[in-house]
Amino acid sequence: MIQLRKLDSTAIDFQETLDALLAFEAETDFAIEKAVTDIIAQVRARGDEAVVEYTNKFDRIPNGGAADIHAFEIGQAELDAALASLPDAQRTALQTAAERIRVFHERQKQELQGFTYTEADGTVLGQRITPLDRVGIYVPGGKAAYPSSVLMNAVPAKVAGVGEIVMVVPTPDGVKNQMVLAAAAIAGVDRVIGIGGAQAVAALAYGTESIQPVDKIVGPGNAYVAAAKRRVFGAVGIDMIAGPSEILVICDGTTDPDWVAMDLFSQAEHDELAQAILLCPDAGYIAQVEASIQKLLPTMPRQDVIRTSLTDRGALIKVRSMEEACEIANGIAAEHLEISAENPRQWAEKIRHAGAMFLGRFSSESLGDYCCGPNHVLPTSRTARFSSPLGVYDFQKRSSVIEVSEAGAQTLGKVAAELAYGEGLQAHARSAELRLKT
Amino acid sequence: MIQLRKLDSTAIDFQETLDALLAFEAETDFAIEKAVTDIIAQVRARGDEAVVEYTNKFDRIPNGGAADIHAFEIGQAELDAALASLPDAQRTALQTAAERIRVFHERQKQELQGFTYTEADGTVLGQRITPLDRVGIYVPGGKAAYPSSVLMNAVPAKVAGVGEIVMVVPTPDGVKNQMVLAAAAIAGVDRVIGIGGAQAVAALAYGTESIQPVDKIVGPGNAYVAAAKRRVFGAVGIDMIAGPSEILVICDGTTDPDWVAMDLFSQAEHDELAQAILLCPDAGYIAQVEASIQKLLPTMPRQDVIRTSLTDRGALIKVRSMEEACEIANGIAAEHLEISAENPRQWAEKIRHAGAMFLGRFSSESLGDYCCGPNHVLPTSRTARFSSPLGVYDFQKRSSVIEVSEAGAQTLGKVAAELAYGEGLQAHARSAELRLKT
Repeated sequence: MIQLRKLDSTAIDFQETLDALLAFEAETDFAIEKAVTDIIAQVRARGDEAVVEYTNKFDRIPNGGAADIHAFEIGQAELDAALASLPDAQRTALQTAAERIRVFHERQKQELQGFTYTEADGTVLGQRITPLDRVGIYVPGGKAAYPSSVLMNAVPAKVAGVGEIVMVVPTPDGVKNQMVLAAAAIAGVDRVIGIGGAQAVAALAYGTESIQPVDKIVGPGNAYVAAAKRRVFGAVGIDMIAGPSEILVICDGTTDPDWVAMDLFSQAEHDELAQAILLCPDAGYIAQVEASIQKLLPTMPRQDVIRTSLTDRGALIKVRSMEEACEIANGIAAEHLEISAENPRQWAEKIRHAGAMFLGRFSSESLGDYCCGPNHVLPTSRTARFSSPLGVYDFQKRSSVIEVSEAGAQTLGKVAAELAYGEGLQAHARSAELRLKT
Repeated sequence: MIQLRKLDSTAIDFQETLDALLAFEAETDFAIEKAVTDIIAQVRARGDEAVVEYTNKFDRIPNGGAADIHAFEIGQAELDAALASLPDAQRTALQTAAERIRVFHERQKQELQGFTYTEADGTVLGQRITPLDRVGIYVPGGKAAYPSSVLMNAVPAKVAGVGEIVMVVPTPDGVKNQMVLAAAAIAGVDRVIGIGGAQAVAALAYGTESIQPVDKIVGPGNAYVAAAKRRVFGAVGIDMIAGPSEILVICDGTTDPDWVAMDLFSQAEHDELAQAILLCPDAGYIAQVEASIQKLLPTMPRQDVIRTSLTDRGALIKVRSMEEACEIANGIAAEHLEISAENPRQWAEKIRHAGAMFLGRFSSESLGDYCCGPNHVLPTSRTARFSSPLGVYDFQKRSSVIEVSEAGAQTLGKVAAELAYGEGLQAHARSAELRLKT
């Protein structure tokens, strides 16, 4: 039996209890900060040599370690061989997922084309969209090596038109994950290097003899990788530092309770800090979901992780109405929001904040995690209030284009000079005034 | 006489010299970090009381300081009075600038509308765009109080449809900048509070009794404000932490050299760390610009700042050709890039990285700083390689929408289950499989 947390939105202390449950602040570990600072400094000073030393040590590279950085290069032939080595069903599934992800992200690209307009006096104003030159994708090694993450990070970069995609993936004990390499082959990654940790992040950010510096680094990693990404931010762009993954299910009580229980499990199985919450106006239905949880949990291979996650951070919440469920969901701003209900769009219209919304009982989060097409890299820890899924736009940037006509300079120059003098910036004012006809 | 740095792209050590000149790394000041950490902790613990204490002290509020937070509220009537009090020419200039900024940013909004598409089996996929609920705008007080920055930060938020815009602006010695308050009135800021520093950032990020927490904080500030913004990032969104401002002018030698000299000054006058660089293939023309600099510098009120900036960080660079100038410009990825040349678009096509491009001799940066319409908050320190001007998109976020049909769940479910089993995530697989018809 698992002891589940049950809350009721009519309780006086409900909001307080919910806030405490949602609260998650990553603690700063100064030992990690210090180690990462040293590693970055060493890689900046000694380049490939330092990368090789750290990799041999931290990844326990066998046979006394690699002699030089080239030993970590994973060439196109090896990627192709990994793809060929997969069972047919697995290879086809990866290819299908990649194609669907590509199609969705092409729509994102189509939406952002830039614009130009010409004013009556001939002045032209616009916004130009260009891809990044070079991007680094970090892929964790070992247990948490997910080929789906390779697709979700690399395909949008490819669609954006990034010039070169460099993937780093550690090979602990020298072991390579064939499914990860196959995903790199499918996604069209340009270069794969079998290195990881803060040393790989430093090499991508600042470059070494053998690695050209990139413009942005994306992808998940452990606490060292996260600390390194924070540290190099500014020299390069980074994606969000993700917190624990979350699912919020709003259910009107019309979905098979086993389905909802399994959807909660699919989030909880990620790790002990993951969060799975159900909002439902029907107490009887909540009891059915609880019974499903009790019944299904013992059948799950990852039941220990699920139990800890649900016990520590999960909740089944009885709400007054579906309307109230939507209000609460806006406060939670969940990474994944399932609206498992009849006519789900009426409720989706009330949602202002969510990383991804899954509408209707057939839209399980797991379908979106792998192959619907939208990205599975989503804002966690309530950051969906102000940030977006990873997308093509993360691999593009905008430049303003301003082409003022001689006539335009006459009217704009007077306005600019007036404001510049008001701010005490006389060179700004004079620069505008020099363009005025006397 | 000012001693100007002159470089030649044919010199063997040119790239090295240029890299050294461009290098700028903001140093971490641990005394500031410590002070900011304390201030944030106090505001989180004691709310308004702490904000009032810090404000009375740091801003030297006269008459023994304010008794409570309400004393710092600057109401709509006071904003309207500030607008009415401006000289007509200044008020009109601010209004013209605001209107032009609004028109440009409306185009940005039009471009990003979201999308939806339906697949053959009835599955619907899409992306929804929504504005942020609440945004905080930081406006510096004292000398560097720029009404144009109020417009450039608040107007895009307003266009995005942000629910509430809260502006904070310190009033050192109790003095309010009327032009800044007037700009807030024009931009339609919802609430203005006369507080600043790390205490204002903390209040916006975490909320107090009298201030609701915001979702994102934008706007420039001093080292304390920058440190506080970095610290609260995650709890709220922030814009980029800006480095010193820069201009790069590419000139083919056909622009009046006085104009180019004044454009370089207009950047250099910002502060001693600002950077102004000229690239030109014509040595004779470079000499003319130098003569203009020598002639005009003594006429500038801010000549001391300009002299230090140009001496320490400026350069006049002779290049082989306009083509080479464009290549070098891509390496510099300047915040502001002027292409002061005949047929500037032929060169603009070769530019991949720049915050804003100013094409043709009439497009001085100063016009863009105030009133062309595009934003003047631009990526500095080579970050234009991966980031964009501030825009409407910074006040919006995307949510993925996934509505899988029963038929769609049959095909997608098999793909997802195959990949989930491959990754060892069995609950993900089972969640997909439960939706399969048996």
